[in-house]
Amino acid sequence: MLELRLVQGSLLKKVMDSIKDLVNDANFDCSATGFSLQAMDSSHVALVALLLRSEGFEHYRCDRNISMGMNLGNMAKMLKCAGNDDIITIKADDGSDTVTFMFESPTQDKIADFEMKLMDIDSEHLGIPEAEYHAIVRMPSAEFARICKDLSSIGDTVVISVTKEGVKFSTRGDIGTANIVCRQNTTVDKPEEATVIEMNEPVSLTFALRYMNSFTKASPLSSTVTISLSSELPVVVEYKIAEMGYIRFYLAPKIEEEEDESKP
Amino acid sequence: MLELRLVQGSLLKKVMDSIKDLVNDANFDCSATGFSLQAMDSSHVALVALLLRSEGFEHYRCDRNISMGMNLGNMAKMLKCAGNDDIITIKADDGSDTVTFMFESPTQDKIADFEMKLMDIDSEHLGIPEAEYHAIVRMPSAEFARICKDLSSIGDTVVISVTKEGVKFSTRGDIGTANIVCRQNTTVDKPEEATVIEMNEPVSLTFALRYMNSFTKASPLSSTVTISLSSELPVVVEYKIAEMGYIRFYLAPKIEEEEDESKP
Amino acid sequence: MLELRLVQGSLLKKVMDSIKDLVNDANFDCSATGFSLQAMDSSHVALVALLLRSEGFEHYRCDRNISMGMNLGNMAKMLKCAGNDDIITIKADDGSDTVTFMFESPTQDKIADFEMKLMDIDSEHLGIPEAEYHAIVRMPSAEFARICKDLSSIGDTVVISVTKEGVKFSTRGDIGTANIVCRQNTTVDKPEEATVIEMNEPVSLTFALRYMNSFTKASPLSSTVTISLSSELPVVVEYKIAEMGYIRFYLAPKIEEEEDESKP
Repeated sequence: MLELRLVQGSLLKKVMDSIKDLVNDANFDCSATGFSLQAMDSSHVALVALLLRSEGFEHYRCDRNISMGMNLGNMAKMLKCAGNDDIITIKADDGSDTVTFMFESPTQDKIADFEMKLMDIDSEHLGIPEAEYHAIVRMPSAEFARICKDLSSIGDTVVISVTKEGVKFSTRGDIGTANIVCRQNTTVDKPEEATVIEMNEPVSLTFALRYMNSFTKASPLSSTVTISLSSELPVVVEYKIAEMGYIRFYLAPKIEEEEDESKP
Repeated sequence: MLELRLVQGSLLKKVMDSIKDLVNDANFDCSATGFSLQAMDSSHVALVALLLRSEGFEHYRCDRNISMGMNLGNMAKMLKCAGNDDIITIKADDGSDTVTFMFESPTQDKIADFEMKLMDIDSEHLGIPEAEYHAIVRMPSAEFARICKDLSSIGDTVVISVTKEGVKFSTRGDIGTANIVCRQNTTVDKPEEATVIEMNEPVSLTFALRYMNSFTKASPLSSTVTISLSSELPVVVEYKIAEMGYIRFYLAPKIEEEEDESKP
Repeated sequence: MLELRLVQGSLLKKVMDSIKDLVNDANFDCSATGFSLQAMDSSHVALVALLLRSEGFEHYRCDRNISMGMNLGNMAKMLKCAGNDDIITIKADDGSDTVTFMFESPTQDKIADFEMKLMDIDSEHLGIPEAEYHAIVRMPSAEFARICKDLSSIGDTVVISVTKEGVKFSTRGDIGTANIVCRQNTTVDKPEEATVIEMNEPVSLTFALRYMNSFTKASPLSSTVTISLSSELPVVVEYKIAEMGYIRFYLAPKIEEEEDESKP
């Protein structure tokens, strides 16, 4: 039997809003350690990894490891019906082909339960090794979202270049070019407003803005975002989920870009 | 001659917004007692009854009973042009085929008059007898609106079931099922936040969510809604209009529903 | 070389938002006195004239008069990427076929430069003589915008009539007629809330509401609007730009209107 009670139910609503447009169907994996998901986006280009550790739940009971296949669009529809202050409980009986989401209002006057059919989804779990990155940028998540949105009005791809002084986001399109530089800046009033750059060596990589924009839908989950870059690895865009875990997006850099520019 | 002056003009704007999508054309009936309307929705399934008593107007002159046929969409367009703090006066000369809406800004610096053609509309006035209901639920109008909206994302119909403990709203659709229970609750800080259930006998009735959602457009008129249920009568969804009257929506329960479910 | 630094960059964003739907391509003219634009709308009915005087810029360097042809839609796209508190610098090298917009965040942590291709645009500069007007109305810009929007829901044209007592805006359409009168009113708490009428002789002119509505997009630039009317001249709808200049819209009155109404 599975019973996970999350007092801050709005977290789960935000998680669904951040991945439902990227991934259609996915298995949620439940074990003693936590509630997790790993899935490729529908065009098999980006990877999403979610972890909500068991300690973050007010009540966490998971008798045996189970994997529950869900349509994320439908799950998001149901979670949208939870109030922002509601307590959300996820329940499933052993062997059942349904999952129940229960929403309790803070005053306990209103109690809703939504039951959803589970699906069989083939999926292979990729091992993602811990890796060394050439550069790690931590910056306000709203700033990163704004930059990705702004550059999308000019071009389709973004070149992210990191030096000791700062991180530069560049694009070019039919109407012109754009460069946005964010300087390292740690002398801010609030730590979440800092832009912090850890760099082992300079790096410059190109990504599709469409995916970056999709990732930034997770911005409501965290005031900061961490971007880990390496020329040999997919970029990791990570949003921490308050004391519970994280949502991470992986995206391989584009490599054709520079060849295109070298043409006459 | 007719001249009705309503200081709180925004009330009339809200009334129009709550019925203009349900009813296309209707007769407004004016008599010494008040300004009223009774109309079927365009698919002849739901009935709307509006009453604004003469005492609620700052000035109310109606020399003889008249019935003015109006296109509610056009009337709503004109009333949209009134400011929220404007005083609205409805004027019509005897035998005239037009009605004039006058809007005065609170400072009297801006005065607008909008003149609209009247229409001839055939309509029969239904007598609605006072009736005994099996159960009467009073609850916050915003809560009822939220529940109808939430359930619409899952199914097309709602089963409303009342017991002494509370009222349950249920639906089912392709993606699953949903049940929302609101408990009787009278120990609240503000009386308009209470959920109060008067029950003579338990009742469980099925309604089309499309209409319920349409009725909830009247929520800005009142912080509470009263739902009167009886297995032999249409449900009445009533919004009081501050010390002036009410808007009531009548809708017959669906009866096929249970037969459908008894099929294999 | 050209380098214009505007601390209140949001002004430029608002200017673009107010004209980008009216004019597609236009030459910006730069001289020692200021940054200006004069352009007909795409259907050659209305004229826009913009002036930002050099004194309004924190730094203003313009070595020689130049005219820069820009696509206003693209320019607006780029300026949309500037934050509302950003300092905007417009830069162009002599003989260059590009212009650069630089956006600096108030804390200098984020610096963006957007480079846009210039265009060759044929345009003749019309001399607009200072003229005497029959009547000049100054009123709150939000009020004027509201009136134009409201009347558009009833008809296509507005008759603006000025007498000593006030200014009347009228329209008629299929669903009826509308008249809105704003009285002269100078005893207000804030000077920008006044409606002030200077009248040499009464005037009554008809204009296309589509254009008036388009002009009111400049409302965020100024809390008041000045409407100068004369039966022999195009109307001038002027929004002052805080201590820097103005944006003026010119539109010829419609003359067929009255003949139409005299028909049986």
